Amino acid sequence: MNVTVGGKSRHYRTVAFDAGSNEVLLIEQRLLPHEFKIVRTKTFKETAVAITDMIVRGAGAIGATAAYGLAQGAQAFRGSNVQKFSAHIDDVFNVLKAARPTAVDPVNAMLDVRRIMAAGESVVEQQSLAVAAAEEFANEDAKHCRELGEHGAKLIKNGMRILTHCNAGWLAFVDFGSATGPMYAAQEQGKKFHVFCDETRPRSQGATLTAWELAQQKIPHQIIADNAAGHLMQRGEIDMVIVGSDRTLGRTGEVANKIGTYTKAVLAVRHKIPFYVAIPLSTIDWNLKSGFDIPIEERHESEVLGAWGAVSGLKFKGQSSKLGERAYVRVANPTSGARNPGFDVTPAELITGIITPAGIFKPKDLWKNRAKLGFI
Amino acid sequence: MNVTVGGKSRHYRTVAFDAGSNEVLLIEQRLLPHEFKIVRTKTFKETAVAITDMIVRGAGAIGATAAYGLAQGAQAFRGSNVQKFSAHIDDVFNVLKAARPTAVDPVNAMLDVRRIMAAGESVVEQQSLAVAAAEEFANEDAKHCRELGEHGAKLIKNGMRILTHCNAGWLAFVDFGSATGPMYAAQEQGKKFHVFCDETRPRSQGATLTAWELAQQKIPHQIIADNAAGHLMQRGEIDMVIVGSDRTLGRTGEVANKIGTYTKAVLAVRHKIPFYVAIPLSTIDWNLKSGFDIPIEERHESEVLGAWGAVSGLKFKGQSSKLGERAYVRVANPTSGARNPGFDVTPAELITGIITPAGIFKPKDLWKNRAKLGFI
Repeated sequence: MNVTVGGKSRHYRTVAFDAGSNEVLLIEQRLLPHEFKIVRTKTFKETAVAITDMIVRGAGAIGATAAYGLAQGAQAFRGSNVQKFSAHIDDVFNVLKAARPTAVDPVNAMLDVRRIMAAGESVVEQQSLAVAAAEEFANEDAKHCRELGEHGAKLIKNGMRILTHCNAGWLAFVDFGSATGPMYAAQEQGKKFHVFCDETRPRSQGATLTAWELAQQKIPHQIIADNAAGHLMQRGEIDMVIVGSDRTLGRTGEVANKIGTYTKAVLAVRHKIPFYVAIPLSTIDWNLKSGFDIPIEERHESEVLGAWGAVSGLKFKGQSSKLGERAYVRVANPTSGARNPGFDVTPAELITGIITPAGIFKPKDLWKNRAKLGFI
Repeated sequence: MNVTVGGKSRHYRTVAFDAGSNEVLLIEQRLLPHEFKIVRTKTFKETAVAITDMIVRGAGAIGATAAYGLAQGAQAFRGSNVQKFSAHIDDVFNVLKAARPTAVDPVNAMLDVRRIMAAGESVVEQQSLAVAAAEEFANEDAKHCRELGEHGAKLIKNGMRILTHCNAGWLAFVDFGSATGPMYAAQEQGKKFHVFCDETRPRSQGATLTAWELAQQKIPHQIIADNAAGHLMQRGEIDMVIVGSDRTLGRTGEVANKIGTYTKAVLAVRHKIPFYVAIPLSTIDWNLKSGFDIPIEERHESEVLGAWGAVSGLKFKGQSSKLGERAYVRVANPTSGARNPGFDVTPAELITGIITPAGIFKPKDLWKNRAKLGFI
């Protein structure tokens, strides 16, 4: 999407590849929303570290980063011995896979690249196919988000007030985003609407990333405390909810997403407000038979007990961190602990529809449409 | 309640009066949970400033503070001219009333003190009655919280996991608290239970004040993000909800309380979890006929856009604030704004019961029990 830097607006992807210099270009997401910066990784090992350190995050974005990292590793190989090259690619694959061990997107992306590379006979051919396949993977991710965005945009009417939760924006993908996709597409069509961004404690991705995205695209929006959505719905100030998904069960229509999503769905149903989930096909899990089987990650309590932000008006003495004036403040009582489940599961009956690149489906209809939805 | 300072535990009230030195003693609540300090105000004007600056907050606590402030102002009068004394008391009353113009508790408390003072003939008699009346007002506040606590404690069974929202604890009253009252009474009875404290963004009173209170009383507890309660209920980890109330409509049973309360009530009903509201009688509004007539304060957006806390590990250069290492961090995207409704209204049908000093009532039964509930 477009980002304005120094008064000039230009298009960026979350992740891109410079084949000439063999560098992966990443938006340094840890600095957002306070600073916009592109990081260039020079080796596949640096690319793996960028994934581990969360310079880049989001399912689609880390998939594309791993695909580019594999191409980068392939291009760095010197020599023409195909067997040695193949062993090298195994190493590259394993390093990038280990960068975020629980994520499935990097592995799927790299398997895709390797499958295409296999058609090449010489090292040079395989290197060239690797770069083309990684590029194709990233393009497909962007294309799928745009397609789901165009399906979802049909739901957005002029004057609507839309609630979203967390960041399922273009920063989580290569471009365009999932929950934000319909908004960006509707804006291109000239529609006017207002977005409420749930702050999304404890990591505040709504207040930081989604709000930054919407501000860059000049979409009118306001951040609200996670506590405020119920009141706004009660007073008739929200017309639709669109969220993303970390995992959607193809068999049941249940949606695992950032903690707090379930609460918004319960509120939406009470107020008869449509609740949509926007997903690329890669987040559909065709195996699990119950949302209760989805492991819910319990994250570190420090996220709940404090907040990260830019210190306002005060400078640090000496030991300022790499992130400049960004600091962690301990908000909570120092002698108290916290529970911090990272995700929750929303049952199908609370969800109006699932917006996908192949169209909008009732959650319980995913299974019977599995052929259209890329089930293999 | 008891507070442990320097390893020693002793009993404190949120507000107290030292008649000998004519000083009001207040817990400096803005420093909690990072520091415990008692502030002594030497004049009624200082007491008014303490109310305005939120050294003391909470309906019951500011009522008692204003009552003591009036007694303090009365005692400071020199002379025996009853008419001049009366004019002086008018001034004191107006200064304390203006300290928090929208609150009703200070006014009601001071009218109570003035009514009792009126029985005195000489200045000295009236001064003496003022001190006794203010003391009585504070004692009554503490007694009512204890009474509602004892009624509420009957609902708490061994092993229960209780959710609370915001701070309706002893810090908001003179002692014991409203939502926390049943917990403190149950603890005295030897019951074991666990409390989940909603963080309560944007001002985080749950993470700061309620968690501090529970830690002082050694009640097992954990702070959770406001987003997490729905998930915990879904997984069967919450057995009961107890919250306080800023205003309870005696005619309809609707409850206005901190933003996010309504959401918790909606979730509780979905999960068939009892949802109780604990209130002293002073929060009942017998006039309003609909919750939609309750004005919802829209607070400053900076509360949503950032957080206050203790900066961790870093010292400030030069200009450190009076609050030491406490700092505000801007969390949100710098170019985004926020909506910040401070309260919401929970309809009667979502509330299992209202816990009062006179017993536990169905919300819709408040009106027919109005005689018991102090309606005048």
